[in-house]
Amino acid sequence: MEEFKIHFKPQNKSIKVPKGTDLLTAAIKAGVVIAAACGGEGLCGKCKVSVGGSTVLACQTLAESDLLVEVPKGSVESHSAMKHESEDFTKGIISEREKSLKLSPIIRKVYVELSEPTQDDNTDDLERILRAVELSIAHSRITTRLSNIKHLSENLRDSAYKVTAVVAYEEGSVEMLAVEPGDTTDRLFGFAFDIGTTTVAGQLIDLNSGEILGTRIAFNKQSTYGSDVITRIVYASNPKGLDTLSEAVLANIADIIKDLSDSCRVNLSVIYAAVLAGNMTMMHLLLKIDPTNIRKAPYIPAAARFCPMNAREVGIDINQRASAVFLPGVSTYVGGDIVAGLLACGLADNPNLTLLIDIGTNGEIVLGNSEWMMGTAASAGPAFEGSGLECGMKAVKGAIQKAEIGVNLYTKVETVWQEAPRGICGSGYIDILCQLLKRNIIHRDGKINRSIKSDLVRNNGVNYEFVLVPKNMSATGKDIVITDDDIENLKRSKGAIYSAIISLLNKVGKNMSDITKIYIAGGFGNYLNIENSIHIGLLPDINRDVYEFIGNSSLAGARMMLLSRDLVARADAIRKNVTYLDLSSEPDYMDEYVASLFFPHTDMGRFPSAQ
Amino acid sequence: MEEFKIHFKPQNKSIKVPKGTDLLTAAIKAGVVIAAACGGEGLCGKCKVSVGGSTVLACQTLAESDLLVEVPKGSVESHSAMKHESEDFTKGIISEREKSLKLSPIIRKVYVELSEPTQDDNTDDLERILRAVELSIAHSRITTRLSNIKHLSENLRDSAYKVTAVVAYEEGSVEMLAVEPGDTTDRLFGFAFDIGTTTVAGQLIDLNSGEILGTRIAFNKQSTYGSDVITRIVYASNPKGLDTLSEAVLANIADIIKDLSDSCRVNLSVIYAAVLAGNMTMMHLLLKIDPTNIRKAPYIPAAARFCPMNAREVGIDINQRASAVFLPGVSTYVGGDIVAGLLACGLADNPNLTLLIDIGTNGEIVLGNSEWMMGTAASAGPAFEGSGLECGMKAVKGAIQKAEIGVNLYTKVETVWQEAPRGICGSGYIDILCQLLKRNIIHRDGKINRSIKSDLVRNNGVNYEFVLVPKNMSATGKDIVITDDDIENLKRSKGAIYSAIISLLNKVGKNMSDITKIYIAGGFGNYLNIENSIHIGLLPDINRDVYEFIGNSSLAGARMMLLSRDLVARADAIRKNVTYLDLSSEPDYMDEYVASLFFPHTDMGRFPSAQ
Repeated sequence: MEEFKIHFKPQNKSIKVPKGTDLLTAAIKAGVVIAAACGGEGLCGKCKVSVGGSTVLACQTLAESDLLVEVPKGSVESHSAMKHESEDFTKGIISEREKSLKLSPIIRKVYVELSEPTQDDNTDDLERILRAVELSIAHSRITTRLSNIKHLSENLRDSAYKVTAVVAYEEGSVEMLAVEPGDTTDRLFGFAFDIGTTTVAGQLIDLNSGEILGTRIAFNKQSTYGSDVITRIVYASNPKGLDTLSEAVLANIADIIKDLSDSCRVNLSVIYAAVLAGNMTMMHLLLKIDPTNIRKAPYIPAAARFCPMNAREVGIDINQRASAVFLPGVSTYVGGDIVAGLLACGLADNPNLTLLIDIGTNGEIVLGNSEWMMGTAASAGPAFEGSGLECGMKAVKGAIQKAEIGVNLYTKVETVWQEAPRGICGSGYIDILCQLLKRNIIHRDGKINRSIKSDLVRNNGVNYEFVLVPKNMSATGKDIVITDDDIENLKRSKGAIYSAIISLLNKVGKNMSDITKIYIAGGFGNYLNIENSIHIGLLPDINRDVYEFIGNSSLAGARMMLLSRDLVARADAIRKNVTYLDLSSEPDYMDEYVASLFFPHTDMGRFPSAQ
Repeated sequence: MEEFKIHFKPQNKSIKVPKGTDLLTAAIKAGVVIAAACGGEGLCGKCKVSVGGSTVLACQTLAESDLLVEVPKGSVESHSAMKHESEDFTKGIISEREKSLKLSPIIRKVYVELSEPTQDDNTDDLERILRAVELSIAHSRITTRLSNIKHLSENLRDSAYKVTAVVAYEEGSVEMLAVEPGDTTDRLFGFAFDIGTTTVAGQLIDLNSGEILGTRIAFNKQSTYGSDVITRIVYASNPKGLDTLSEAVLANIADIIKDLSDSCRVNLSVIYAAVLAGNMTMMHLLLKIDPTNIRKAPYIPAAARFCPMNAREVGIDINQRASAVFLPGVSTYVGGDIVAGLLACGLADNPNLTLLIDIGTNGEIVLGNSEWMMGTAASAGPAFEGSGLECGMKAVKGAIQKAEIGVNLYTKVETVWQEAPRGICGSGYIDILCQLLKRNIIHRDGKINRSIKSDLVRNNGVNYEFVLVPKNMSATGKDIVITDDDIENLKRSKGAIYSAIISLLNKVGKNMSDITKIYIAGGFGNYLNIENSIHIGLLPDINRDVYEFIGNSSLAGARMMLLSRDLVARADAIRKNVTYLDLSSEPDYMDEYVASLFFPHTDMGRFPSAQ
């Protein structure tokens, strides 16, 4: 077994890297680090490690044989990377909105010095502390659990009646979660989580300052049991299947908590809240709620909102009295992650017509303003995530992410981490489709032009394909191609999203020109080329200034609710104000969808830029 | 081992009765029966059993050697006794008040037929049922626990969307406890409990009709660890001591639940509530709350009110989703049992000045009306329970309960169950004190008249004593006497209660004549002779019509809250409206107390009837 050194972060241990595993994954499994900002796709450049004197990305470096990697203590590279990463998530509109919010976390510590009981002042201990706290926070009826009463008398006397009450704001009520001896108000923390189908992201927040102490993103461990929500719902129907899926994502959460609390030196005992946003299926699986009917018509979740719960009862191991709070959702296809996104981008507070598009495995879209909102989900499928295509792959090492096709039809490609090309990722496909159209290699219906005389255009026996990278240039030793079927698949994906936008507009009698802002959210959105997306007909052809990329708006919304208690009621109001539009029952949707199955569209008048 | 038959109730089993144990206690231990209405004191006559052809009281029948007792199936004696017993508790003012209450139990079942979800009506399952229930009961925001959501989807579909929601009314909020398939509204039950230091009483109530299905009273199993609250608090400070005490009283509760649910054929699954009233120490011990400071000056309980809890979490084994609700208390010495009593007798709703006296181990007293209330607790001590006196005993077999002293100073006694006299119980002492005064055997200061020339008045070497029953007439073979010390003890007890009443009146500037009603409550109160009690100066000498005995008002109050949800807020309002008067800090109390240490009083003008 070969040995070399790797610098991740302050650690001092050795990890085993089995052959074929990348260093980042091995480090995650060993508990040394949690995946990088880009989810291990090699794009953020934040998991740089020193290997034998040269710098590589850990997530892109596969062990060619079993390795023993030493992780020396002292490196702080990943910590500073985390700082940078968190800034990524707070730019633009979200950053503006966060600055305008009054810091009022859903958890608060209140230090009180109680008068000692006497014969003339014989109020019981609980009433004594509750009255003081009620006076301090101007709330008239705080509740608490039995566990806080059992040793309250001793605790008050041992601390000379100087204690800190930890209170949680819920919708319309306040609960005293714990009583700590002395003044502990200087230490209070919480977590925000986005529970996505593919990735789980978490942030540790200082609730006294609002500062993001660190962010971690990990692949959702449920992926082992199914890559999409449907296969996971099927898996959940197995005996213990639901438990297994819940435990998988709880392990993600536990890893993130451990990693962030360790690296930020924050003890679990001072972490009193976790706010979670996720799509409807993710919430059901996490909470072990039978998700069966989510995938059966008419697609009804068991519940779309959940009361705050004790975090430990949910399986989240922070302070034993901590609260777990969930963003409420609208329906099966518009979950708490979208409500979080609406909170984050402020669509529901904006009098002007605004569009939020969250592009992930589904394309969730909400149109509206401060008066009304209508949301829908386009069955975009996973094509833009590189799934289900001949040479599709995630945006990891060797994935073609940019492409330019010359007049000679030879393609110049740019890959992730400048490795020899292995396949094509979503943003690569968007570029390639643009170039195929530009060079007339495909017709506007997406079919490869059979009249082209070139070795690069060929019949593969099943259908036509275009060769982007010949096998002698590829890392796989095989031609990298795009086929008629691939293009059909991508066309349907982009058509689904575009036509959903149009149907939403039609439903409410609005035009594209009425939209003053379009927010693009989601992990995929990190690398979405807006210009090219318009050229292939994925996004409407309007003033580019209207578009703003807002990153992971689900995580941002969860964080904002954690930091602003008024948003608990606001989220519920938003949830209630979103009407769900079921596209399959919209009479014009199928026409719109079919009309969009051209590049960019059958109605070229809608895409003047592409003419 | 001798064998004979015993008829308790429908049973068919044999029980062992060890030598020296009474049949009732053995039957309780064997789970065959729960103690009789009088708490096993032999006075209610309801545990009559057939032994070898003759009828005896089980509680008064000791096994002279180890016995095997057969309990044949078919007897219904105890069931009918229970019916009668429950009527005892609902006479007079309490009966009147219960009749005037609108039946509105704190737990309610709501049958709803939900519309099946469609594409156009895709509300989630939880929202669907909550909306229907909210509409049905006109409450806007019902909450529920995660456990009710986990299988909700399946449950709704399996029952064709026809379900019964079980909802619990709390102060200001409503929680959906459970969802049952189909229409189950016809079966809904609850328990009311009085958790006393000496006895635990429980009633099974049909919440649809308000009917009391049965009542059970048992000795508090905590007595093994201490006869009074102070010794139990001391015991609780041992390792596991608090757990032991909690488990003891929970075993009482479990026995009562099992016995009543079995005999009334009510399945535990349809019992959705338990309302409990008890003194402050009993509530602390039941809920495993450290009671240490209850017995340390300035005598502060950890808490005086407790939020509703899941019954199983408390340790009460009825429906797993059932709610346990607690009557709130005022202070260490005025507990939830007294607040229950105030609810029951209606003192807090009465514009006229009323007095409630609950005579148990402590004498708790509340004076007031619908505007204000002041409560206090007199350290009466256990003398009237027969404890701490030379020949004192509980009112069980052979206890002298009535006495008349002739001009020749010989005493004619009447004992419980007409057995040969063994000792003297509380009501006997009241009679004896009256007679001793009447025959001038004692001075008004309570000292035995040394000038009497009689063998019955003698110096026992330590102090003087009067012989009531000579040893050849007693069951113990010893003289039954009352001593100077006994009389002193009884004098202090009656003085404590009387002077507490006077101090309360003085504190609020009222006279005895201002009182329009005096309610006497408590187990002791069952056998209290009002006339004699006045003659010795225990109770004020006013119009006898003012007095009304109301039995176990704590149990009655718990039952009323179970049956009337408005009383939850009412109890809290009452609690807040009771001012606690600490007698030891009242300047005039000691003078009043000292003045009351005469029979009936140093100021004879206060007791015209006794002159």
